[in-house]
Amino acid sequence: MKIKFINARLLTLTEDVKISFGELEVTDRRISYVGPARSKSDNYDRVIDCQGNLLMPGFKNAHTHSAMTFLRSYADDDDLHTWLTEKVFPLEANLQPGDEYHLAKIAFLEYLTSGVTACFDMYYNPLSTAAASHDIGFRTVCLGTVTKFKESVAEMVEAYHTINQPESIVSYRLGFHALYTANPDILLELAKAAKELKTPIFTHIAETRKEISDSYATYGMSPVQYFEKIGLFDYGGGGFHCIYLNDEDIEIFKKRHLYVVTNPSSNIKLASGIAPLAKYVEAGIPIAIGTDGPASNNALDFFREMFLVTSLSKIAADDPRVVDAYQVLKMATINGADALGLHDARTLAIGQLADIIMLDLEQPNMQPLNNIVKNIVYSGSKSNVIMTMIDGKILYEKGQFYVGEDVHQIYQKAQEITDRIKLAATKTQINNG
Amino acid sequence: MKIKFINARLLTLTEDVKISFGELEVTDRRISYVGPARSKSDNYDRVIDCQGNLLMPGFKNAHTHSAMTFLRSYADDDDLHTWLTEKVFPLEANLQPGDEYHLAKIAFLEYLTSGVTACFDMYYNPLSTAAASHDIGFRTVCLGTVTKFKESVAEMVEAYHTINQPESIVSYRLGFHALYTANPDILLELAKAAKELKTPIFTHIAETRKEISDSYATYGMSPVQYFEKIGLFDYGGGGFHCIYLNDEDIEIFKKRHLYVVTNPSSNIKLASGIAPLAKYVEAGIPIAIGTDGPASNNALDFFREMFLVTSLSKIAADDPRVVDAYQVLKMATINGADALGLHDARTLAIGQLADIIMLDLEQPNMQPLNNIVKNIVYSGSKSNVIMTMIDGKILYEKGQFYVGEDVHQIYQKAQEITDRIKLAATKTQINNG
Repeated sequence: MKIKFINARLLTLTEDVKISFGELEVTDRRISYVGPARSKSDNYDRVIDCQGNLLMPGFKNAHTHSAMTFLRSYADDDDLHTWLTEKVFPLEANLQPGDEYHLAKIAFLEYLTSGVTACFDMYYNPLSTAAASHDIGFRTVCLGTVTKFKESVAEMVEAYHTINQPESIVSYRLGFHALYTANPDILLELAKAAKELKTPIFTHIAETRKEISDSYATYGMSPVQYFEKIGLFDYGGGGFHCIYLNDEDIEIFKKRHLYVVTNPSSNIKLASGIAPLAKYVEAGIPIAIGTDGPASNNALDFFREMFLVTSLSKIAADDPRVVDAYQVLKMATINGADALGLHDARTLAIGQLADIIMLDLEQPNMQPLNNIVKNIVYSGSKSNVIMTMIDGKILYEKGQFYVGEDVHQIYQKAQEITDRIKLAATKTQINNG
Repeated sequence: MKIKFINARLLTLTEDVKISFGELEVTDRRISYVGPARSKSDNYDRVIDCQGNLLMPGFKNAHTHSAMTFLRSYADDDDLHTWLTEKVFPLEANLQPGDEYHLAKIAFLEYLTSGVTACFDMYYNPLSTAAASHDIGFRTVCLGTVTKFKESVAEMVEAYHTINQPESIVSYRLGFHALYTANPDILLELAKAAKELKTPIFTHIAETRKEISDSYATYGMSPVQYFEKIGLFDYGGGGFHCIYLNDEDIEIFKKRHLYVVTNPSSNIKLASGIAPLAKYVEAGIPIAIGTDGPASNNALDFFREMFLVTSLSKIAADDPRVVDAYQVLKMATINGADALGLHDARTLAIGQLADIIMLDLEQPNMQPLNNIVKNIVYSGSKSNVIMTMIDGKILYEKGQFYVGEDVHQIYQKAQEITDRIKLAATKTQINNG
């Protein structure tokens, strides 16, 4: 399969944020040409005239819980710990095997609409999510999520070997939910597994003040310091949220080259706090961006996240000059790819995976064209995404999905599962009451 | 002209936020029926099958500077006062008569894409903006913007009488830019005019800490207290931004039934601050929402603003329970209409103006349908807006504009003006340097 894009503005991200004009070709799964227009010398299955619109690498959603779509707009307006223990956990108890397969598909469709071409997905039963990912054609890096209630390190190691296959659209990494849902035995076992597999570890870190104070009460130190002490980060990794890193935590992040994955919408909606990203940038910590899951955010909209990364950083620093559009764009693309271990989905360059989006500049929110990168981050919207290609396949184009099945059937199946879970939770409540 | 919508979910806002299923009819400019499906008994110019999608009143953008599109993504990453004096004012000095006509059109198109059916527009040369508004068919309440540099109270009073005509899509109210760009003579003259015309006054209030401290240094009191002292608010009105109202200011707002118009995106991007809206809600102050202008925001996206109103309020109050989706939806619609003086564009009811939007619920960000109002505010997006009707005319439908002219010509004209202004500003800089 050969696809050629002509008359395109190209934001390749290979040379900073320079935008050039030219062509891009995709052969099967990868980019086979990018550069100035050249004479037609080959047969293409499709030639797409971009009419001056912009091609760029897709956004990488570096933290989410895709299958939690069933909880979207169900539990809101509570703090993280009340929300988790009183709303999320009781409903999750009614998930049945295979539910995640259908529920994750809704999220994958939503990612396509905002130009997200890969996600770092932390949820139970990753094999279900991996299957959905294969069937839709969406690139997913599944992340283990062991807790003291669900899943085990042994199951994670098994999933690691099962899911990680060469050239697959799905990969797998080790992780755990958070310090407060784990225990020392689990974490020591995890650290051992990470060392054996020589692989990074990711987890929720410093999301709330309660998490920090509980950690000091139990372990006499911050979560990051405890993880470092037991050797969890010997092969790198990173933390989701990271609102409350202290100076010593920052030093550990630097030493281990850990990623901060920021989730601004979720953090403000839960009133968890605002991450001081300018401070982390200054310390040289790599930052990537995630939507968090649809239960807390509730949108999986990368434009909303990008705007919040810049503007909340400015508020947190009390300085509008920090964390500008250029920095945010790199966090959303290159840093995200690196955090996910997708080192061949970083830029538009020959040999890179064809994970590409097209942004429509001929919409009022992009006019006039004073500065395209600023427009993307400061005034861009899902409505500007007119094409999302993953692994060389166009999955979304001009509002239509090409994912091998009718999206209304996906919606219907997810609604049925959601209704069943809510009904079961109500019955449990009645029985317990 | 008679248009009938069938198979619609109806969020009329006449009975709180209850959603019913039924039909809605528009005859010329107004709603002529809303309620359960009824047998076909009349001839319609068009019957639209909503297929279960949602009809609701359009959003009211209660503070903007539409014509400032030429500054979008031109001046960013600075604080308000640097941005205004070093970036905005020098470029504005190169505006020529009639420029606003073309520049405002870009903003009107953008409003249509996010379901905004009216705006409260503060900018120079309101007759130009009013003409653009008439030609596009967009409902605008123009607001005077006298400063000590530009425009006069006499010009405002003249515009008041010229623009305010019965049944017009454009109306006009009195205002001034801010305390720090006015002087006591102007404000006393304005207070006199407001009393003579028995009309409210609107202005930027308490947007930055500098504005507050300068006011105390010059007048020995807060801006709100000074305005009250000289009788500016005797016939009501309100303040844009209102981040730093003190307890006495809040009492004045209550006494005069003044509106707080909040502009969250602009406030965080400029690092001006976060308005403590929960406190104002508790005090019973009516709150409306504005995008602010494209020079500071930079998007005119009401979904972004609605999400920020709820989530930033939660952060400011350190309490995720405050200012929920239902409250935000009312601010965005009914309160906005009241703040703009559009008392017949509040709800979907017989006799109200047909300023109506249709939201597509069959998109992944709205699935599953656990709670439609929460979905709109917490996960909604411009991409859900599949129809925007103003004054009985469909101006935007499924991504296409029906505004009487080719939108690409509007873009091109605005780009030409923008390029001319930037070039002129560069020349001035060279001559001064």
